[in-house]
Amino acid sequence: MSRVWNFSAGPAALPQAVLERAQRELLDWNGCGASVMELSHRGKLFTGLATQAEADLRELLAIPADYAVLFLQGGATQHFAQIPMNLAGEGDSADYIVNGHWGEKAASEATSYVRVNVAASSKADHYLSLPARDHWQLDPGAAYVHYTSNETIHGVEYHDIPSVGEVPLVADMSSNILSEPLDISRFGLIYAGAQKNIGPSGLVVMIVRRDLLQRAARPMARIFRYAEHAANDSMLNTPNTWGWYLAGLTFQWLKQQGGLSAMAARNRTKAELLYRAIDESGGYYRNPIDLAARSRMNVPFTLHDNALDAAFLQESGAAGLLALKGHKALGGMRASLYNAVPPEAVEALVAFMRDFAARHG
Amino acid sequence: MSRVWNFSAGPAALPQAVLERAQRELLDWNGCGASVMELSHRGKLFTGLATQAEADLRELLAIPADYAVLFLQGGATQHFAQIPMNLAGEGDSADYIVNGHWGEKAASEATSYVRVNVAASSKADHYLSLPARDHWQLDPGAAYVHYTSNETIHGVEYHDIPSVGEVPLVADMSSNILSEPLDISRFGLIYAGAQKNIGPSGLVVMIVRRDLLQRAARPMARIFRYAEHAANDSMLNTPNTWGWYLAGLTFQWLKQQGGLSAMAARNRTKAELLYRAIDESGGYYRNPIDLAARSRMNVPFTLHDNALDAAFLQESGAAGLLALKGHKALGGMRASLYNAVPPEAVEALVAFMRDFAARHG
Repeated sequence: MSRVWNFSAGPAALPQAVLERAQRELLDWNGCGASVMELSHRGKLFTGLATQAEADLRELLAIPADYAVLFLQGGATQHFAQIPMNLAGEGDSADYIVNGHWGEKAASEATSYVRVNVAASSKADHYLSLPARDHWQLDPGAAYVHYTSNETIHGVEYHDIPSVGEVPLVADMSSNILSEPLDISRFGLIYAGAQKNIGPSGLVVMIVRRDLLQRAARPMARIFRYAEHAANDSMLNTPNTWGWYLAGLTFQWLKQQGGLSAMAARNRTKAELLYRAIDESGGYYRNPIDLAARSRMNVPFTLHDNALDAAFLQESGAAGLLALKGHKALGGMRASLYNAVPPEAVEALVAFMRDFAARHG
Repeated sequence: MSRVWNFSAGPAALPQAVLERAQRELLDWNGCGASVMELSHRGKLFTGLATQAEADLRELLAIPADYAVLFLQGGATQHFAQIPMNLAGEGDSADYIVNGHWGEKAASEATSYVRVNVAASSKADHYLSLPARDHWQLDPGAAYVHYTSNETIHGVEYHDIPSVGEVPLVADMSSNILSEPLDISRFGLIYAGAQKNIGPSGLVVMIVRRDLLQRAARPMARIFRYAEHAANDSMLNTPNTWGWYLAGLTFQWLKQQGGLSAMAARNRTKAELLYRAIDESGGYYRNPIDLAARSRMNVPFTLHDNALDAAFLQESGAAGLLALKGHKALGGMRASLYNAVPPEAVEALVAFMRDFAARHG
């Protein structure tokens, strides 16, 4: 069949132009007679690509020079563990803000390496809102404050960067990095699994203030130390070269789209279109999230009668709308609207939703 | 330019047929209207692919049912650390056989998690031979015995599986897995970075006897426990889906080639052809490795006069022979002859070497 509109939460849609270019040069990258996957990561051909990808990311996010950019493996989940290994000493504590599934998981994986203090949580509210900043119980002596800037499953997102004083702010931005401009200087460390807004799965992009790299004091293998990865330009061992390459193509595509201000406007428009269709459906569709906390990236919604779910999924699939099934923890539907999902996809979804409601009224 | 003959040590050549298929279906996998990279790893489409890849690998290597197969991230280097975390308790020791750069590194990364006993080493011989089995100082109380079945840089390879009694044998097979049939039951754990004989970089394939998964007693994050990865079919978190897909295509290609017996015969023929060209060059080319330890996968060689190295590299590149430069630790040349390097590539290399010697006599 032809290409569908893909609302997958991750691994998610990639820009069509990026895929087409990757397809064209899959067997012969840059005229070298081999695939980019078949090149030594230490050869000039690949290191040129790697350097350019980092430069483009630095330009897109205006990353200050005192921040290192790392291209790592292991998924965000591995770094739930590796961040405390690197940023906390034995006996230290860290503050965790928990506003959904991923924040819970980050705190849970960290417990082997740091005393986790859940400084705020919206669990009692079923993660339908964000914990108000003035109720956070922050510890000025914490090694860092960790939060999840967008919760992929629950569909809640911070629209401002929380102020946490002098303690380094650590953000899991897996599902909203590069969706809008960002003041990097407000953060100690930002990390993101690539498979939503950057590239394919198996790659993690990390942006970390260089002074924090000197913290790691506990015994651990060299391969777990971010400082070693930074000192070796993320080539301490063989990186995910295909992921790095596709990330680089995505960064170039973002620049061609007008950069992150343009993407922010486009993402706002897309999200507003879908939320309006939900809110103006007279209760046929529902999104229960606090208005101020609604995510621009992941929009969970339910039908007024879940007996209609199977028909909705079957018919939307037949209409070329892929991966609308909600996460099993919440049921219902979810549409993910990452950068690579074009406005036309959201227009098609909204048209389908109106039509479905009219036919199954 | 057209495709070259690629002798890269890794990331290395992939089978042409695998790349062509990946190219054809890059934007529309299996008629689903999306790239395989854009699919949820938990959806039926991808889990079907993942299950088939494991089944094909089990068939190729005749993996017994009491062994788990894992598709992981982090490169072999991360598992240099993670293996002792999982297989050794606090205070345990493990025996390491060191016969090259990668064995050294495996032992070094392990030291944070286990008392490393170098039970044998060929370092004093500059890794030109393998340490004789009857000189290994094995400890019957060791948590495991670790060795590197093929050393990519030094070009030495074990042609038999060493007997180590009841202690589990752990093998880093990154650069010779799937090059010949293997008696899996002789091993406790086998692991391999994908980027030589399996697929692209960013994927590690592990084959581990299930009883060993119960060993991990020390506190560590869930994401580091192999038992958790096994219990979750390697989807404890998002795997490298593109790597898994290409690995699956490579396994199918190996089956189409006649399986590992056919590959073993082909690999033996390729290596013999190149070693004969070196040995019969009257000293123009040299490979210093002990005959019994020569690798079928990686063939380092030097020219009789290293002033000719630059011309050799320039002219071989112009002749469509890629990545013959030796590792910086050894200098000279290296040709890697993994499964995806066809006999025609080695014939072209040998013809070039004879021609070069005649012209620069």
